[in-house]
Amino acid sequence: MAKKKLNIGLMGCGFMGRTHSNAYCKVGKFFDLGYEPVLKAACARIEDKDKLEPFAENWGWQSTETDWRKMVERDDIDVIDIVAPNNTHHDIAIAAAKAGKIVLCEKPLAMNSAQGLEMAEAVEAAGVANMIWFNYRRVPAITLAKQLIDEGRLGRIFHYRAKYLQDWTISADVPQGGQTLWRLDAAVAGSGVTGDLLAHSIDTAIWLIGGVDKVTAMTETFIKERATQDDPSVRKPVLIDDACAFLAKFKNGALATFESTRYARGRKNQNTFEVNGEKGSVCFDLEDPHQLQYYDHSDDAHVVGWRTILVTDSHHPYMKQWWVPGCTIGYEHTFVHALADFLKGLETGTFTTPTFREGLETQRVCDAALKSAKTEAWEKVEG
Amino acid sequence: MAKKKLNIGLMGCGFMGRTHSNAYCKVGKFFDLGYEPVLKAACARIEDKDKLEPFAENWGWQSTETDWRKMVERDDIDVIDIVAPNNTHHDIAIAAAKAGKIVLCEKPLAMNSAQGLEMAEAVEAAGVANMIWFNYRRVPAITLAKQLIDEGRLGRIFHYRAKYLQDWTISADVPQGGQTLWRLDAAVAGSGVTGDLLAHSIDTAIWLIGGVDKVTAMTETFIKERATQDDPSVRKPVLIDDACAFLAKFKNGALATFESTRYARGRKNQNTFEVNGEKGSVCFDLEDPHQLQYYDHSDDAHVVGWRTILVTDSHHPYMKQWWVPGCTIGYEHTFVHALADFLKGLETGTFTTPTFREGLETQRVCDAALKSAKTEAWEKVEG
Amino acid sequence: MAKKKLNIGLMGCGFMGRTHSNAYCKVGKFFDLGYEPVLKAACARIEDKDKLEPFAENWGWQSTETDWRKMVERDDIDVIDIVAPNNTHHDIAIAAAKAGKIVLCEKPLAMNSAQGLEMAEAVEAAGVANMIWFNYRRVPAITLAKQLIDEGRLGRIFHYRAKYLQDWTISADVPQGGQTLWRLDAAVAGSGVTGDLLAHSIDTAIWLIGGVDKVTAMTETFIKERATQDDPSVRKPVLIDDACAFLAKFKNGALATFESTRYARGRKNQNTFEVNGEKGSVCFDLEDPHQLQYYDHSDDAHVVGWRTILVTDSHHPYMKQWWVPGCTIGYEHTFVHALADFLKGLETGTFTTPTFREGLETQRVCDAALKSAKTEAWEKVEG
Amino acid sequence: MAKKKLNIGLMGCGFMGRTHSNAYCKVGKFFDLGYEPVLKAACARIEDKDKLEPFAENWGWQSTETDWRKMVERDDIDVIDIVAPNNTHHDIAIAAAKAGKIVLCEKPLAMNSAQGLEMAEAVEAAGVANMIWFNYRRVPAITLAKQLIDEGRLGRIFHYRAKYLQDWTISADVPQGGQTLWRLDAAVAGSGVTGDLLAHSIDTAIWLIGGVDKVTAMTETFIKERATQDDPSVRKPVLIDDACAFLAKFKNGALATFESTRYARGRKNQNTFEVNGEKGSVCFDLEDPHQLQYYDHSDDAHVVGWRTILVTDSHHPYMKQWWVPGCTIGYEHTFVHALADFLKGLETGTFTTPTFREGLETQRVCDAALKSAKTEAWEKVEG
Repeated sequence: MAKKKLNIGLMGCGFMGRTHSNAYCKVGKFFDLGYEPVLKAACARIEDKDKLEPFAENWGWQSTETDWRKMVERDDIDVIDIVAPNNTHHDIAIAAAKAGKIVLCEKPLAMNSAQGLEMAEAVEAAGVANMIWFNYRRVPAITLAKQLIDEGRLGRIFHYRAKYLQDWTISADVPQGGQTLWRLDAAVAGSGVTGDLLAHSIDTAIWLIGGVDKVTAMTETFIKERATQDDPSVRKPVLIDDACAFLAKFKNGALATFESTRYARGRKNQNTFEVNGEKGSVCFDLEDPHQLQYYDHSDDAHVVGWRTILVTDSHHPYMKQWWVPGCTIGYEHTFVHALADFLKGLETGTFTTPTFREGLETQRVCDAALKSAKTEAWEKVEG
Repeated sequence: MAKKKLNIGLMGCGFMGRTHSNAYCKVGKFFDLGYEPVLKAACARIEDKDKLEPFAENWGWQSTETDWRKMVERDDIDVIDIVAPNNTHHDIAIAAAKAGKIVLCEKPLAMNSAQGLEMAEAVEAAGVANMIWFNYRRVPAITLAKQLIDEGRLGRIFHYRAKYLQDWTISADVPQGGQTLWRLDAAVAGSGVTGDLLAHSIDTAIWLIGGVDKVTAMTETFIKERATQDDPSVRKPVLIDDACAFLAKFKNGALATFESTRYARGRKNQNTFEVNGEKGSVCFDLEDPHQLQYYDHSDDAHVVGWRTILVTDSHHPYMKQWWVPGCTIGYEHTFVHALADFLKGLETGTFTTPTFREGLETQRVCDAALKSAKTEAWEKVEG
Repeated sequence: MAKKKLNIGLMGCGFMGRTHSNAYCKVGKFFDLGYEPVLKAACARIEDKDKLEPFAENWGWQSTETDWRKMVERDDIDVIDIVAPNNTHHDIAIAAAKAGKIVLCEKPLAMNSAQGLEMAEAVEAAGVANMIWFNYRRVPAITLAKQLIDEGRLGRIFHYRAKYLQDWTISADVPQGGQTLWRLDAAVAGSGVTGDLLAHSIDTAIWLIGGVDKVTAMTETFIKERATQDDPSVRKPVLIDDACAFLAKFKNGALATFESTRYARGRKNQNTFEVNGEKGSVCFDLEDPHQLQYYDHSDDAHVVGWRTILVTDSHHPYMKQWWVPGCTIGYEHTFVHALADFLKGLETGTFTTPTFREGLETQRVCDAALKSAKTEAWEKVEG
Repeated sequence: MAKKKLNIGLMGCGFMGRTHSNAYCKVGKFFDLGYEPVLKAACARIEDKDKLEPFAENWGWQSTETDWRKMVERDDIDVIDIVAPNNTHHDIAIAAAKAGKIVLCEKPLAMNSAQGLEMAEAVEAAGVANMIWFNYRRVPAITLAKQLIDEGRLGRIFHYRAKYLQDWTISADVPQGGQTLWRLDAAVAGSGVTGDLLAHSIDTAIWLIGGVDKVTAMTETFIKERATQDDPSVRKPVLIDDACAFLAKFKNGALATFESTRYARGRKNQNTFEVNGEKGSVCFDLEDPHQLQYYDHSDDAHVVGWRTILVTDSHHPYMKQWWVPGCTIGYEHTFVHALADFLKGLETGTFTTPTFREGLETQRVCDAALKSAKTEAWEKVEG
């Protein structure tokens, strides 16, 4: 059966541009799909043209654009995939939706939930398929955690605790802003670790156990001023949150703690969560992504213990598409899985989660946390 | 050199009575000390006399009492050691101090910080040596963590995170109150996990990185009503906190998270902490008490990694008193260490920490957390 | 600079055909190389034609062959890459060498060292580049281990211990032979775990610490008879080794133990090694491939410990080509690394290791072990 | 019920003297037993009198002896417990048996199996209770492993692998012989790691899965000459085995590997074993003695994994005598357990294992290994 071609227009050519390009190249070789993505065009700002051309050549993008509005208008593009900095998501996504394109967007959805709401309404009004790339849902071990919860193996949920720890900004010599360090520039990123890291943690939490009712948060900016990447002689106040921690009460009554920082010496990309239920618990650490820890209280009392499930078997989510038991996959595969799920959704006519609407829910928790850090009070999550 | 005898009067004969009795029997055999504790008298309520007699015989307590006031008045007692439930600490400690006795007290210091303050003032007014048994400070790996921080190996501290998780009260069939389950009875225990478990976490944190400025907390009581142990036909509301989590800002600017629960399925006595500093980090888990994780950012970049220090060597705190490298010790030894340190302090005329005054500091953080959970606002820590 | 095209002819379309095809597709997108592999032709036996065609289409092989001799004769092929069962390696490799092709070959090199010697001599006589795919050398953590040893961080080596454990043949219902289970058929595979798994362990060991002097071995076949895959009604004796363990003395005086089995319940692909030297040790487990354990005896005595190096940083072998610190890669990447190294070798005119000659050295250790298991005596390793 | 007094005569006052003294002091406080050990007399060589007196005082030994023959003759001694160096075991044990004493002996049983046989025959002829102190059988996690095997949870056993690794003799500056380093003197110790460490591994293996049929071994002495402790100016050849590894075939058909060394940098007291059976596996490491790893193949396929059993619960062997779940015990407790089991055996009239006869079985495996290392051939285990 011939596959349907799906022409992709990629908005951005940075780090996330690489992960998505790799996914487009790879997905059809490992997953049996009705749609075949075609790397039609890659777009970047005119200032980044020197970077765009070799990027496009390397990955096989058939053409390039330096004006995102032109890309959105092209008739030969079916999908607009936004991998540009956070402050561009809103305008591009809404224009793309209005142009009838399928819209994919990197996380976080937007600079804030007001923007996010407009984006969700735009894709819904246009009736176009849409997805936000919370790729970590597609770590097989995390997908397995979801499956265990859905099977009822944990029972009533009492606790959720999430951390997302890194250490790459501890040095005061790291500049902010510019092409590769925009994540440190509040004007471009919207927030610091809250949007960049905690958004992942929140998305996973909501997916696994449901919505958040209210939060109380604290944030900190440990280094108050940094040079700018574009002009090292200029030093500016740092306006992002270097660290954010919050307590949360979920709608189902569960208590949760969330914490993220880029000042946890020795933690490189430690995205962890633990869920404690009446009947069992699960625990995950992205620094050992091929494992899920699972505790089943129904085991015989003298042999009960935390099980280290090596999530590499054909019984595990996504894994039968890859190699053989005991052979691991890595970071890049989570994007392939998200893409495969999305394409399968197109085929079957269902909107693959997380949609923009779900991304908005996460955004609202981020907003509530950031607001709470200012008001020093508990804040209800909107919506 | 002949050792000086130190006559001990033990107030209580429950679980903590065992741990202390064992420490009194054992300390002189492993530590070279100027004082020798003598197991002079053990005391329990008259209702517990059936339990007291075999207890005293088993451990070699030379006599028994069933009225604590008589014990305090005995001339042949040098030390009053309180291992009875929390609601007895205040009165016994103050009476003992007034009688000029050395006073040792199990944690938490008191039912609340008002009581605690009176106790601290009483021992200070009397000028008697005093110590609160936060035994986990004397886990060699925790003492080593303190040493590393004092050596400057972590540098400026950014983050502290502590958890103390158990799972033994998940079943609704566990009764409350009575001789062995008074920890579930707010009238006797003062609070739930906050005083019982978080007090340990807070004491360790303050010892390691300094005082707490303010907190915001949440608590939960998952099971609202339980039968009473003394009369299973009577069911009463559960008034303790089953779980408590709080955010904290330390006086030195560090951010912290604390969480405790007895509803974390699969966690038996998981008392953990992690400290992240500019130059390094340490991480500890009481379920692997013989290990300290340490990350030293000054290691060569291609070989830096979290070190698992096997804290069993003669170079490590307390360990040269015990066996040989690779041979572990356990829970009971933390009490022996605390006692050895206390006796050494008597010998050298210094008051071994944590004193009641320090116990009060922890109590105040507990109080602030419990208050914050009610006010739903940040609360400053008194004092 | 335009890249030189290098036309690949792939011999085989099974599991290893997939891993190599993926590497050919991917290598140029992540590594900056002078040569660009072109997927020119894939070949399989005429009996496997139904499998070959979709395989070729999926991966983009431009043409197919069903007679390996024709492939070897094609002028438009530069490289013959052998991924067919072990009993085909000898004839194809020698014919390819004689035809002046570059020859790549999956491990183990051959059915035995007599074959292997002829193969090594053939490629050397022809003067063609050649490499055997011991891909695990290119796990970044293993390459890092090599680097640490070469830096002198371990000092004099006392001990080496290797295990390679799996559990997939424990059921007596697994048949032998046929297209996917030829590894259980001695006539096709040459041996069981010795050639399939221990060959990896031996290659790594020799690479890390040098040549083997002599061995004493035992083997076992736990299930003596199995049905055949091609005709389930036919049962035949199992002639491969299900398990093999041997002691070895290395030329440098180190003592070693090697063990492999497919009967270690719970072990999926647990390829481990530990090296103990005077100054330090390293330890690796393929089930956690992103980590290397390293012990440095020169650390301060109270903080020395096994370091868990998270091998995902730009300072680590191969990793700067991939993602960012904390983001793992997996099994498939080891093939990409081997290919990248090989292509870089072509560019610089050096023969990338392991060559056939080095593969022969491993083969000779396998042969000595299999012989020893029969003679029940120590056997010197030839050569 | 009054307890029967059992008068102990301890032969030796070194490291093992401490572990046993501690056990005698402690056992009755934690275990409910019909016999109460009385610390009647401790004995050491006249040369060690300066050490013996403070030792006896510290532990409460009521009297001392400096001639073992006198101790054996004392009417007020019921039990002779031998904790002196290996070359004294034979004569003392036989004399004690002839004098009708109960005989306890530290491992290894003897200098060789000829001696061991005479000892076993002597206690059997005398009909006296006897036990060899293989204390590691009484690590609760190891006892639990035995229980799981006896419950049939592993099924047919395929593999056993044991290691016992240390690193304390790597420095060439460590002297041999003398009071504290007699383990390095072959004339006193009989052998090196084989008798000191592998004897433990072998005893555990035989206990868990049965007898050994034959072995092939290698040994090495890495440092050929050392100063003597008693006179540092005298250097002598080192005659013990620094390392020993052997392959074994068990009578039940299982394959095994055993390895021990004191040259494994970074390993302090790493006594490990793994047992692989058809239905499950267990794995243990003495450096984490409170854990047993267990894999149960009957778990649902998507949630099967190695379980880390935290062996601190009242459901686990010995643990209900100690503290509460999550609270660990350590090295010293294994001696208390062995003693408690022995005293319980006296009470019930059964001989607690391992008896001298069982110690002999282990000795014979040691002898076969040492012989094989010389003959370079497989050697059958006698008996």
